[in-house]
Amino acid sequence: MQSDTDYMNKALQQAEIAAENGEVPVGALLITADGEEFVSGNAPITTDDASAHAEMRVIREACQALGNYRLTGSTLYVTLEPCLMCAGAIVHARISRVVYAASDPKTGAVESLYQILSDERLNHQAEITSGVLADESSKLLKSFFRSRRNKRKNS
Amino acid sequence: MQSDTDYMNKALQQAEIAAENGEVPVGALLITADGEEFVSGNAPITTDDASAHAEMRVIREACQALGNYRLTGSTLYVTLEPCLMCAGAIVHARISRVVYAASDPKTGAVESLYQILSDERLNHQAEITSGVLADESSKLLKSFFRSRRNKRKNS
Repeated sequence: MQSDTDYMNKALQQAEIAAENGEVPVGALLITADGEEFVSGNAPITTDDASAHAEMRVIREACQALGNYRLTGSTLYVTLEPCLMCAGAIVHARISRVVYAASDPKTGAVESLYQILSDERLNHQAEITSGVLADESSKLLKSFFRSRRNKRKNS
Repeated sequence: MQSDTDYMNKALQQAEIAAENGEVPVGALLITADGEEFVSGNAPITTDDASAHAEMRVIREACQALGNYRLTGSTLYVTLEPCLMCAGAIVHARISRVVYAASDPKTGAVESLYQILSDERLNHQAEITSGVLADESSKLLKSFFRSRRNKRKNS
């Protein structure tokens, strides 16, 4: 059986691919109740879609593969704390557990800025694990933003 | 020039189509900075996609038609107060103005349960107008849920 770290490593690979495409490096892996795995990377710029965060893409892909708009019993791994949009989609999809790597103090909606997945006024809550490979994810993000700033300076 | 009521009427037509498809009747219209119109209805069940709310679908469609993941200067009309997911997407897409019909006390994320589009900690805020054709939208929603309850009772 694979560990949270194993799955998060696969999500990090997707984040690296996103960075190569010029996207903010965030990657996600969703494992369904039946053990089926789906992976995706952040892609709003390359797909011309404001909603194309890694989590949204992997949720959509899994929903369509399963022919179900709910993913009850599934676990979502993501390299950065989900934003409001993605946390909202996690609630709609009834994802049971969310594991994320780095925190996002500015827009994180799971534990930082908002605590959407623990809000008992909503009709679904998810189990949360954070900090898995957080350093690796932070390094990748910092390196991406540093390189982008340097490119802008030199252009 | 068309009024907010004219645009909301078009969004309501999309909500009616959604109801005919067995979806919760919510409809949206987005008008871009250049005056181009896009319409869509709520469709998570029929498209097997937890994220397929009317707002998300119209945002995605407009982004792709414009070849841009931002929709600066656009106005979104929607027949029900946007949820967290949709409010998050509105922020990401930099939509300038949101006009909605009925409030959603249980999950509304614009003025009811959360006030996402006015949160100055986020990097975008939208102008908000609410209550346009609210009664018409509420009637459609109530009639849909009443009919669904009756179907369940009789099945």
